[in-house]
Amino acid sequence: MTRLFNDPADFADEAADGFVLANQRWVRRVHGGVARATTSPDGTVAVVIGGGSGHYPAFGGLVGHGLAAGAAMGNLFASPSAQQVAGVARAAEHGGGVLFSYGNYAGDCLNFDAAARTLESEGIPVRTIRVTDDVVSASADRAAERRGIAGDLCVFKVAGAAAEEGRSLDDVTAVAARANDRTRSFGVAFSGCSLPGAAEPLFEVPERRMAIGMGIHGERGIDETDVPTAEGLASLLVARLLDEVPDGVDAAGARVVPILNGLGSVKYEELFVVYRSVARLLEEAGVVVVEPEVGELVTSFDMAGVSLTLFWLDDELERLWAAPADTPAFRKGGAVVSERLPESELEASDGIDVGTGSPESQEVAARVAAALAAARRVVDEHVDELGEMDAVAGDGDHGIGMQRGALAADAAAREALGRGVGAGGLLAVAADAWSDKAGGTSGAIWGAALEALGRAVGDTSRPSSAQVAEAVHAATSAVLAFGAVPGDKTMVDALVPFDEAFGSAVRDGASVADAWRAAASAARAAADATADLVPRKGRAKTHADQAVGTRDPGAVSFALIVETVTEVIEEGAAR
Amino acid sequence: MTRLFNDPADFADEAADGFVLANQRWVRRVHGGVARATTSPDGTVAVVIGGGSGHYPAFGGLVGHGLAAGAAMGNLFASPSAQQVAGVARAAEHGGGVLFSYGNYAGDCLNFDAAARTLESEGIPVRTIRVTDDVVSASADRAAERRGIAGDLCVFKVAGAAAEEGRSLDDVTAVAARANDRTRSFGVAFSGCSLPGAAEPLFEVPERRMAIGMGIHGERGIDETDVPTAEGLASLLVARLLDEVPDGVDAAGARVVPILNGLGSVKYEELFVVYRSVARLLEEAGVVVVEPEVGELVTSFDMAGVSLTLFWLDDELERLWAAPADTPAFRKGGAVVSERLPESELEASDGIDVGTGSPESQEVAARVAAALAAARRVVDEHVDELGEMDAVAGDGDHGIGMQRGALAADAAAREALGRGVGAGGLLAVAADAWSDKAGGTSGAIWGAALEALGRAVGDTSRPSSAQVAEAVHAATSAVLAFGAVPGDKTMVDALVPFDEAFGSAVRDGASVADAWRAAASAARAAADATADLVPRKGRAKTHADQAVGTRDPGAVSFALIVETVTEVIEEGAAR
Repeated sequence: MTRLFNDPADFADEAADGFVLANQRWVRRVHGGVARATTSPDGTVAVVIGGGSGHYPAFGGLVGHGLAAGAAMGNLFASPSAQQVAGVARAAEHGGGVLFSYGNYAGDCLNFDAAARTLESEGIPVRTIRVTDDVVSASADRAAERRGIAGDLCVFKVAGAAAEEGRSLDDVTAVAARANDRTRSFGVAFSGCSLPGAAEPLFEVPERRMAIGMGIHGERGIDETDVPTAEGLASLLVARLLDEVPDGVDAAGARVVPILNGLGSVKYEELFVVYRSVARLLEEAGVVVVEPEVGELVTSFDMAGVSLTLFWLDDELERLWAAPADTPAFRKGGAVVSERLPESELEASDGIDVGTGSPESQEVAARVAAALAAARRVVDEHVDELGEMDAVAGDGDHGIGMQRGALAADAAAREALGRGVGAGGLLAVAADAWSDKAGGTSGAIWGAALEALGRAVGDTSRPSSAQVAEAVHAATSAVLAFGAVPGDKTMVDALVPFDEAFGSAVRDGASVADAWRAAASAARAAADATADLVPRKGRAKTHADQAVGTRDPGAVSFALIVETVTEVIEEGAAR
Repeated sequence: MTRLFNDPADFADEAADGFVLANQRWVRRVHGGVARATTSPDGTVAVVIGGGSGHYPAFGGLVGHGLAAGAAMGNLFASPSAQQVAGVARAAEHGGGVLFSYGNYAGDCLNFDAAARTLESEGIPVRTIRVTDDVVSASADRAAERRGIAGDLCVFKVAGAAAEEGRSLDDVTAVAARANDRTRSFGVAFSGCSLPGAAEPLFEVPERRMAIGMGIHGERGIDETDVPTAEGLASLLVARLLDEVPDGVDAAGARVVPILNGLGSVKYEELFVVYRSVARLLEEAGVVVVEPEVGELVTSFDMAGVSLTLFWLDDELERLWAAPADTPAFRKGGAVVSERLPESELEASDGIDVGTGSPESQEVAARVAAALAAARRVVDEHVDELGEMDAVAGDGDHGIGMQRGALAADAAAREALGRGVGAGGLLAVAADAWSDKAGGTSGAIWGAALEALGRAVGDTSRPSSAQVAEAVHAATSAVLAFGAVPGDKTMVDALVPFDEAFGSAVRDGASVADAWRAAASAARAAADATADLVPRKGRAKTHADQAVGTRDPGAVSFALIVETVTEVIEEGAAR
């Protein structure tokens, strides 16, 4: 929905003014649109593009070095007039003639053609390439009648690059024609769009439905379905475009620029999720992806929709696509040439890197994994109770957060165990998974605690009682670094007594199992005693006055876990 | 509304995968987020940014030369874990230490701080600058508690540029701190956003209302009003930010980077309309605008909203802001240094350039202007009738289109007359205005006809009868160039008989007035006779079968206009 405008009748003009004000480095305002603000060598071809407004960055956003020399900017979704087109062409032209390129729509054809006649009568040679990439808009045997959508960018880009090379008007025209012949797009829409001040949307798509093949001005598509998954949409788009590979091209081994274009309200993150599948499907078809684009390149105001373009390269088109460009909305080739890292460093590392442990430490790792499994079970059993406790003074998500964290840690630990990690590595992996999936403060704290524990335990030996006590103390310190102190009514109220009891028992000569049992009892007693504490100011989000009398869920979940781990340790000791 | 996803639980991860696949030139996947795919000199500082996902291009889109070395990417609107942050920092770090910079949110502070402790324990020095630009989120005397929004970009950019210069960790930190001190943002929202798979929006703003100061995760603002005009919104944003100029800075004469940031569903054209007013208001306040940014820089998924950031420069910050950067979503400094056109050529030329006419031609111009005024009146009188005729075989907009065109031509002609133009210039101006405002086919045709007429008449002399006949014939040829032929049931059916009758009468020695009267009669008879014609196939859009028996609106409006112009010519002749 369009919300920001002054007089709707002035919208397109004011948008053009603002666009130029924001992009003076590249463009200047001329009659009918914009032209470059920079010099071009005499005798080079001027690629002049254009069409209705509402498709930013098409068309003004694509004016600059290596791309268009000027853009005629019509009213919203309406062709510029012949006079506007001619005005832009006169300003943009610098002695090498003019190539008009634009999407194939009746109004644009009418006005650009009229402008071409005027310019020719003034002695300026003009050629025209209409972009016809939208495969839905006419059958393949009537390809010249197809509309132009995001494939505009491919044709404009290579034409602009060829012009920059100083090629003749006929050469630039031939390159643009070949690019158009080798560009195919297919789009879908999920919503219409509304123009400034309009009482009704210009067109509509029913909620949760998808119009297949709808054009960028709401032109009727070929079908309507429920919105598929991102993967399903990618399959639909790729399959349709692989169905119509240009003559003489073999998809397997072909080099292709994919452009996944958002029409306005489909956001980048969604586009990336779809692109992930597009890239995989193209790879499966043997297509080699070259410098893809994912983003908003030819929009339809705030319409929700997506189109996929495949631009089937040849050597010359690839060179021209990769050539530098510097415009308000499309830039290629950085000011600084950065060297690429060696391939070995570029490989995705999606997990943390943990080596194998000594045989001794692998045995300890198995016990730690069993402890994490027990933790997961006890949290599962008490998830509702922990949530209810948290709802009194917090936002009620402690149970769910602990459940997500313990589940993820358990799964990650089991997976790591299969890879032969030591106890330290296993705890590092579990820490990572817990904090990542649990989120929130409890996730951060449990992640830090497990990480510190793992760091202290290491991957080489079976730790002595004293070393376990040191590890527990390191974990406690890591938690205390988050800032809570005993008495704040947090997990720390149970953790600190646990740490003290464990250390004290070990110093008195207790075994790990005995020390742990004693410490777990201390944690339980302290957790129950949190019922008498007042939450620290600022911690309780709601109903703070009711919080006295309720135990702290962080302290209670800690006590539950250390209690259940006692059993695991005793089992281990009994073996 | 988010529509494209697979399993919602995997959304952020899959988006990160797709993002990396689409941007392999710049970034590689590392544990917890992304790092540069390019080399950096040993010993340089790594600026590591991050935060929740859903804010693209923040944060992964800002990784690359001249900006961040890595970005930790959490789940949707959720902080990355300490382990993820540390993972990214380890991968991004190259011997000069790490500067963490991120928006000031509790979860991010918790996890980045925990990661900093881990990294420091590993011997990697870490500094932190939290961005606090959102003026609404806390009062000026508690500025350190403010949230970070689009001002993130200013801080990250200058820190990245300083790191690229090889400055020390303390230097880079000091620069980032100063940038943060001199950056202020203020935002509004018009709608909430919905995360993948969520049944309900995460937060909402009532339809046609504006939440003033709402944060990028829907944090409560300070007020709610009706959505103002674009100008009204610009005033609100600029006024609030000029109210809080950094200490020691005088707004008048200050150099400032304005960033007008769209949060997701407010589109570029709307942003440009608002920016037009922002630029003017800043200029009125004496502020000098430096390299502004208008677009989507820190988003909030598909939330509709806008924020304005003012970044108050000093010499060093300006140099660092202007330094090259090359990242997936933010690039500065083209690969090619283009020379700027001389100032005289950069001035906006919003109208067509028409000189003054000879005194004789100025007299003719006055009669032409009177004819255009008469045309406007007669079209006004018959607008409904023309629309009804068009509705039978077309889309019913012929009357309105002719009305808009004639009105614009009349206004432009009167304005041009005051500037002393000749008849040719006046017709050129009128042609331009008509086609621009009328739009559609009739606008294009009338524009071309008036332009050809003006070109033939010129600006120097009073045309003879023969010259007027030539001009009429030139205008007719310009119309025929659009492709219609007599018998197609178009304006041409009246125009061609008019041209023939006029030429014939002049050749027989008739005065302009007499020839025009005869030609207008011929046009009227021919227009009435279009009732008997069948529209050319493809022309009639609806109810084509009913079109026989209805006159063609284009032919009728032409006849009406030339009839009424007869009176103007006779008046002129009678003087």
